[in-house]
Amino acid sequence: MSGKNNTRITYPASEKVYIPGEINKIRVGMRKIKLTDTVTVDGEGNKIVKKNNPVIVYDTSGPFSDPKIPIDLYQGLPRIRDWYSKRKDLIRLTELSSEYGRQRLADPTLDAIRFPVQHLPLRAKPGKNITQMYYAKRRIITPEMEYVAIRENQQIEALGLKSYITPDFVRKEVAAGRAIIPANINHPEAEPMIIGRKFLVKINTNIGNSALSSGIEEEIEKAIWSCKWGGDTLMDLSTGNNIHETREWIIRNCPVPMGTVPIYQALEKVDGRVEDLNWEMYRDTLIEQAEQGVDYFTIHAALLKDHIGLTANRLTGIVSRGGSIMSKWMQIHNQENFLYTHFAEICEILKTYDVAVSIGDGLRPGSIYDANDAAQFAELHAMGKLTDIAWDQFVQVIIEGPGHVPMNKIEQNMKEQQYACRNAPFYTLGPLTTDIAPGYDHITSAIGAAQIAWYGTAMICYVTPKEHLGLPNKEDVRNGVIAYKIAAHAADLAKGHPGAQVRDNALSKARFDFRWKDQFNLSLDPERAMKYYKESSVHDGEYCTMCGPNFCAMRLSKDLHRECKE
Amino acid sequence: MSGKNNTRITYPASEKVYIPGEINKIRVGMRKIKLTDTVTVDGEGNKIVKKNNPVIVYDTSGPFSDPKIPIDLYQGLPRIRDWYSKRKDLIRLTELSSEYGRQRLADPTLDAIRFPVQHLPLRAKPGKNITQMYYAKRRIITPEMEYVAIRENQQIEALGLKSYITPDFVRKEVAAGRAIIPANINHPEAEPMIIGRKFLVKINTNIGNSALSSGIEEEIEKAIWSCKWGGDTLMDLSTGNNIHETREWIIRNCPVPMGTVPIYQALEKVDGRVEDLNWEMYRDTLIEQAEQGVDYFTIHAALLKDHIGLTANRLTGIVSRGGSIMSKWMQIHNQENFLYTHFAEICEILKTYDVAVSIGDGLRPGSIYDANDAAQFAELHAMGKLTDIAWDQFVQVIIEGPGHVPMNKIEQNMKEQQYACRNAPFYTLGPLTTDIAPGYDHITSAIGAAQIAWYGTAMICYVTPKEHLGLPNKEDVRNGVIAYKIAAHAADLAKGHPGAQVRDNALSKARFDFRWKDQFNLSLDPERAMKYYKESSVHDGEYCTMCGPNFCAMRLSKDLHRECKE
Repeated sequence: MSGKNNTRITYPASEKVYIPGEINKIRVGMRKIKLTDTVTVDGEGNKIVKKNNPVIVYDTSGPFSDPKIPIDLYQGLPRIRDWYSKRKDLIRLTELSSEYGRQRLADPTLDAIRFPVQHLPLRAKPGKNITQMYYAKRRIITPEMEYVAIRENQQIEALGLKSYITPDFVRKEVAAGRAIIPANINHPEAEPMIIGRKFLVKINTNIGNSALSSGIEEEIEKAIWSCKWGGDTLMDLSTGNNIHETREWIIRNCPVPMGTVPIYQALEKVDGRVEDLNWEMYRDTLIEQAEQGVDYFTIHAALLKDHIGLTANRLTGIVSRGGSIMSKWMQIHNQENFLYTHFAEICEILKTYDVAVSIGDGLRPGSIYDANDAAQFAELHAMGKLTDIAWDQFVQVIIEGPGHVPMNKIEQNMKEQQYACRNAPFYTLGPLTTDIAPGYDHITSAIGAAQIAWYGTAMICYVTPKEHLGLPNKEDVRNGVIAYKIAAHAADLAKGHPGAQVRDNALSKARFDFRWKDQFNLSLDPERAMKYYKESSVHDGEYCTMCGPNFCAMRLSKDLHRECKE
Repeated sequence: MSGKNNTRITYPASEKVYIPGEINKIRVGMRKIKLTDTVTVDGEGNKIVKKNNPVIVYDTSGPFSDPKIPIDLYQGLPRIRDWYSKRKDLIRLTELSSEYGRQRLADPTLDAIRFPVQHLPLRAKPGKNITQMYYAKRRIITPEMEYVAIRENQQIEALGLKSYITPDFVRKEVAAGRAIIPANINHPEAEPMIIGRKFLVKINTNIGNSALSSGIEEEIEKAIWSCKWGGDTLMDLSTGNNIHETREWIIRNCPVPMGTVPIYQALEKVDGRVEDLNWEMYRDTLIEQAEQGVDYFTIHAALLKDHIGLTANRLTGIVSRGGSIMSKWMQIHNQENFLYTHFAEICEILKTYDVAVSIGDGLRPGSIYDANDAAQFAELHAMGKLTDIAWDQFVQVIIEGPGHVPMNKIEQNMKEQQYACRNAPFYTLGPLTTDIAPGYDHITSAIGAAQIAWYGTAMICYVTPKEHLGLPNKEDVRNGVIAYKIAAHAADLAKGHPGAQVRDNALSKARFDFRWKDQFNLSLDPERAMKYYKESSVHDGEYCTMCGPNFCAMRLSKDLHRECKE
């Protein structure tokens, strides 16, 4: 492990601030970006100094950016959602419920890589439902609901507006299934966040090793890195060795909700032999991961046996890993997808820990040619049925979406999804709007992601420049995250999300004032903006190398305004 | 100058092919990408080999990618549009018409940097109109019209379809003003191309030094570089010394149409003193540049005196260089914009050489806050009036557009432009869909560019990652061009442009077949795709590091299809 001090996240001219809750004893972390003054000179040569208000921005970096909170990766992050210990509908277990989990714990050869602290898991008491959706329907405002209400509001209040995003508004959205708060009771390190179309668009980042690459340290480093740049949730898609232990290290140090695709680990447990997958072992895997604290599971339960034939004329067949695994399993056994047939039992498990389900789109199109085809929409309608089953048990649901879709076919995806899945939040991978740019698929997909998020997709899953080519390194993760922060923010602006424009306005004003540092500090990636500026051997004055002093439009325009006023 | 051999453009597995004209003695260069065979094994272990047809793609690299054509930057490119020498409505001058041009030619201190070969310019005979629009209205199909018809058609014919893009279709679009063919008679090195909403979306790249940076060699290198990656036109925005000589070197070696903003050079001629700008000197600059072969001029003639007040409440004032220069001039002299008052005379000059006019948007919004404001649309309506004046003289017109615009306000830009400017092609800079990502504005703007191009914008002007920060280097140019090729192609797909999908389909098939090299060779940037693939220490087999062998969806999916068939 790379040590204790190397994990701090810093942002220039920024301070960690906390807004306390009014109902619950919570404090919501934010980033406050301090700005310098605007200095102008009037007609008589007098300096006029005007203060610029600081800008408070949504912060995904958790304790890593608070110098007052000690960080020790070997201990894990502070367990901020400590209210669970007092809840009467929960019990703390005395041992792990998963057989596999117990085996791993008992194996002395794993001591060296095992996370040093063992937390015994919580679960719902028998007969109790403890999901955010259940509480919401019972008209109970949880601390999580108040937390996300505060978290979503800062920009709105900066405008002096009364926000419509109250804790009760959050509750109603969660109750209706239009939004989810992924918050496994066993991941109390995570700061609550909300995924729903009436809230800020969120982005997910994927990390994870394959059998061919990267280890535990690198994965934790990537997780923190993703949080630094603004990843709202994190999926660990590891398929290599020691998945269980790797996951524990990441969850214990992860301030954002984490998702997984449990079938990946299940397949590892049978050494990659798809035919050996079975319900019992998959079930144990769900429990194993739920007790570790995974906040949402991608489950490819809507890909039915009858759908496979619909892919026969596809150009690129089945490109979802989970989808291809389940298809092969169905074909070998000539049986219906066991994730579908056992879906109610799956929900029984999920509700016990408040794990949300992200219904996986095993038939998402892998090429422009395959977009919006019969296979894709058949699965989407099966997703709707599963949504009902999950909601019957108050399990929170999001629906995964494509993939590769040309711009003119994107809106139909959103509309069909809303109709088929009765407004459960949509969570899409891009979509990529062309197939011809491997190496730049963060861009081909940011175009589609911005568009679909504008239409109502609640969370977009990032794509890195390495998509289709290999596993992303840190720089790829950064490029992918920023591309998706751009897409999400462009959608927030287009949806007219109140307050979304505060940061744009502050940055543009800084730009017009030639307050270069404020411009950098307000940007999504201050380090890169600064680096590019410096590369051009510029002057920190009223122009840059782009135009030079005589041709600086902003300087000329400012002169003009000055002269108008004199 | 960096020499003769270093200027070749190569693409992997590609061959330069030429399609001859049927009406005129022309040959249209294309790039043919050769593909490997698809090899599968049937149930009995027999190898089945299937040929894959080569893919022919639109090619902007001109002679640089044809090893059979000798390249000598000191001589310039072959003057392929040699039909001008036979035309009876043209005359070749015996000296330059521009006083400034003659002075520069006579100055011995410039011998060292002057382009070695002097071509005397052509112009229309007195009383003759020689523009493409004039011919089109006279129902004459020029070689340029046939050329672009062939050029736009390749993908369509690959589908076995009869293309609607006939030479006469091109003629009608040019006659109606819905498309332009920028083709100054003094730039016979350029391969004809068309800008119009019924054709492939085109991209413009900007090069050019400012007083603070870069020299002639670097600019030529950037020009060739831009053509390599797919730039359809090139604007030289130089504002430093020796603009005249730099431009000559670039034009003589430029296989794509070139545009300029003549007011930049005019301002250099008066040492940056805006107050000293005047019509006579500007007029001489137009003639100077027209006789060098500039194919289109950006002219900020629609920014009127009355519009300036409309910018008073803007967040970022006037961000167009040309716009801010003209505003300052109007304010100092308290007179109407001389580009507006002299616009008919300007068109007299342009039609003499068939220079197209790109009516500049001096009031484009420089921030999300300023998007779609009164100032912007007031100028747009003035642009419509100027369009009529230009069309009266058969001068080809394109209209420049924004800028910074949130996604929900983009469509209005397109609609107002079509209405106000009666379907003259729209040519936009992005638009950037948020202000908060300096360092990534190729992405913020590719999102907006793809969208507006889908709505009908004919050409999109690229933005590099260095936008707002400094002048782009070669790598920035590459990133900007590819981001815009993606946006343009995404729009072509969304518009349903016939044949646009051929390349996507071929690449996706290669991907599904694990024909890695074909996948790279078909991509917009084969070098980067290959590099990323290799970085991940992959195997050239049926999987990569992304998923590893057990989790490769495509391999599983292929197995599935194989088994289905057995």
